[in-house]
Amino acid sequence: MDKTKTGLRNAKKRKQKTALIIPAPQAPFDYKKELEAAARNMILVHDPDMLIKMTADTIVDKLRVKHVSVLLQEKDAYILSVSRGNGQIRFPVGMARVDKENPIIVFFKRFNDRILFKRRAVVYRQAKGLLKSGGVKDRLCAILEHVLYQMEVFDASACVPSYVRDNLLGVLLLGPKLNNEEFSDEEVEFFIALASHMAMAIRNAQLFKELELELDRKKQLFIRTTIALAAAIEAKDHYTHGHTTRVTNISKEIAMRLGEGAPCVNEKFIEDLEFASLLHDIGKIGIPEYILNKEGPLNDDERIMIRKHPAIGVGIIKSIKELEGALQGVRYHHERYDGLGYPEGLKGHGIPLIASIISVADSFDAMTTDRPYRRRLSKADALAEIRQLSGKQFDPRVTHAFFKLYQENRI
Amino acid sequence: MDKTKTGLRNAKKRKQKTALIIPAPQAPFDYKKELEAAARNMILVHDPDMLIKMTADTIVDKLRVKHVSVLLQEKDAYILSVSRGNGQIRFPVGMARVDKENPIIVFFKRFNDRILFKRRAVVYRQAKGLLKSGGVKDRLCAILEHVLYQMEVFDASACVPSYVRDNLLGVLLLGPKLNNEEFSDEEVEFFIALASHMAMAIRNAQLFKELELELDRKKQLFIRTTIALAAAIEAKDHYTHGHTTRVTNISKEIAMRLGEGAPCVNEKFIEDLEFASLLHDIGKIGIPEYILNKEGPLNDDERIMIRKHPAIGVGIIKSIKELEGALQGVRYHHERYDGLGYPEGLKGHGIPLIASIISVADSFDAMTTDRPYRRRLSKADALAEIRQLSGKQFDPRVTHAFFKLYQENRI
Repeated sequence: MDKTKTGLRNAKKRKQKTALIIPAPQAPFDYKKELEAAARNMILVHDPDMLIKMTADTIVDKLRVKHVSVLLQEKDAYILSVSRGNGQIRFPVGMARVDKENPIIVFFKRFNDRILFKRRAVVYRQAKGLLKSGGVKDRLCAILEHVLYQMEVFDASACVPSYVRDNLLGVLLLGPKLNNEEFSDEEVEFFIALASHMAMAIRNAQLFKELELELDRKKQLFIRTTIALAAAIEAKDHYTHGHTTRVTNISKEIAMRLGEGAPCVNEKFIEDLEFASLLHDIGKIGIPEYILNKEGPLNDDERIMIRKHPAIGVGIIKSIKELEGALQGVRYHHERYDGLGYPEGLKGHGIPLIASIISVADSFDAMTTDRPYRRRLSKADALAEIRQLSGKQFDPRVTHAFFKLYQENRI
Repeated sequence: MDKTKTGLRNAKKRKQKTALIIPAPQAPFDYKKELEAAARNMILVHDPDMLIKMTADTIVDKLRVKHVSVLLQEKDAYILSVSRGNGQIRFPVGMARVDKENPIIVFFKRFNDRILFKRRAVVYRQAKGLLKSGGVKDRLCAILEHVLYQMEVFDASACVPSYVRDNLLGVLLLGPKLNNEEFSDEEVEFFIALASHMAMAIRNAQLFKELELELDRKKQLFIRTTIALAAAIEAKDHYTHGHTTRVTNISKEIAMRLGEGAPCVNEKFIEDLEFASLLHDIGKIGIPEYILNKEGPLNDDERIMIRKHPAIGVGIIKSIKELEGALQGVRYHHERYDGLGYPEGLKGHGIPLIASIISVADSFDAMTTDRPYRRRLSKADALAEIRQLSGKQFDPRVTHAFFKLYQENRI
């Protein structure tokens, strides 16, 4: 995600720029500032993996910890998803996966209501001390012993839980400090706050991902329904089965090939083109069946009738605001570069590029499909015909891109 | 937004629950904790107005400030969008609107690179002191005098800018403290950090809003295109213009009326119903035109043919995953409660509710529209007929809801 990267870069830039009217305390590590910066950076990052990496990096770099890993919730298990280290131990990513019966998970899920550990970190040496002194009672004592054993396995000096509301999203596993000193109270506070910010940022990122997925689903709904309806219309025109889907795919390929040189071909253009290709023949719904299905050549009246399909198509979709950009593709996909096409006899670059692209894709697919009056051409023969018609029927910019695609085996 | 409210409530709950293994300093106001809590609460709030209110409330409540307003960027101007106060002055919301030439805006936009004020707050008495002492030079001096004059107008003791990257999103205008003391350095630091968090949270909220708008646009694209195509199919069936739209609206009304008592009617059900109603007659695309347009009564063969339209409709949409929930509505909208319908002769509650709803809406619209063989009925007469057919053709649960809608003038 480009936004994310720019966000990070800018956030760093801003941090460097900040100067104070009130002199900041010259502490070696300003927890408050670091936490603020981390929280601000996190909010615009919408990739959970990146958020975890940012958190782990902050701890490893700023606090000189040997290694940091994160157990992150994934369905019913917790996955060891990142491991960063200054020191010797670095768990291979994907190596470990603990289920929800792991004592660390059980502890933070079920025992977080105990006064001593309410939603807080477990610091190995502190907890060990508490156990020795008899300061921990009954069931808590048993589970805590198991937790400490697990921490030894992970070489963790502290475990910091990360909650979203009442859900345990993950656990930070912090290795010992490089200088082997114990964590100060301030450091533990910092871990807890950082884990809390991380959890909220991950939840935010998940909400974003859900919205983006839903957006994709709705777009697919539109595309698939249009394809299905176009197929139903094609079913009446016996020779065009699958035509709409193929024209749409070829059109998009051409646009992306053109896009490498043409500034007007952007994301919006490609989406408009996709919609226009899907709908280019939709006006055939208004053409009498006997004309669509006629085996022999059409007479003049019938030809006039069938030439109305772009206008009928425009009539069907013109009130749909979201299809504004697609309209010209539907309207002009039968225009010709030499001005001999229909409905308006537009010429050369007077024909919108979106329509010129559909025109080539449409013709290529018609040539390579069996028709009532002739058998289909091979790809190579169709290409030769398109080459011969370049500058006559077709816009040379488009045929040029089309030939390149063919050379690249993308058609 | 319910999520937002629950988020806030839960965040508060969590805060109350938090107990420390390490005792927290018992300061009268813990800036660090307040800032952390504010940042955490903000991230899951996706309403910019709510975010500004949260920020203003925090300042007014925790720091005993007389009033807080926010100048928030909106296109080319900055709108005074919130004003909260403990004291006497409260600007009416919507009263003030300053353009981008206002000295406060100009100052934070163009002079934020000056060492003395880099992206920082302007504190009235401090700045006044600086001006008097000659500590500010050249152009900065002139603009700063204008800023201080504007602050007097707003009764502001401090102005705190709020940036997203290099964009000035807004300015917090803080009134004097209730006890008339000056702001401490720590308080000013707190304002700056809070404004920074607010800016990022608002940007995050804006990204959410953009995604949600885009989601709505894609859904509308699907709905409008389906309606347009259904209209094109209807155009062949001369008597059903606007039928699809009306059936969809009536179906949704019935479902929402039912929803007050029926647990199965949720948001997902209503969306499925909407899609099913939009597509219920889409199979007519596969019926020969001469049958759809026939003026006289249909013969047996023709009747058999037209009764295939639900199955043809299912054939068209069945491969579309997003329409799975709508399938049964398309398939069974001609079933009858007494088992005499088609295609399968399902009976009573064996007919999916989604289909029973479309059946009533479809029949009501057919009754109240002119048909080749009879003139349309009045609403009252159609209602009487539906009442008479309740328990025979129609599911009584559905007709019951339908009558209620009629009584409430919603049909």
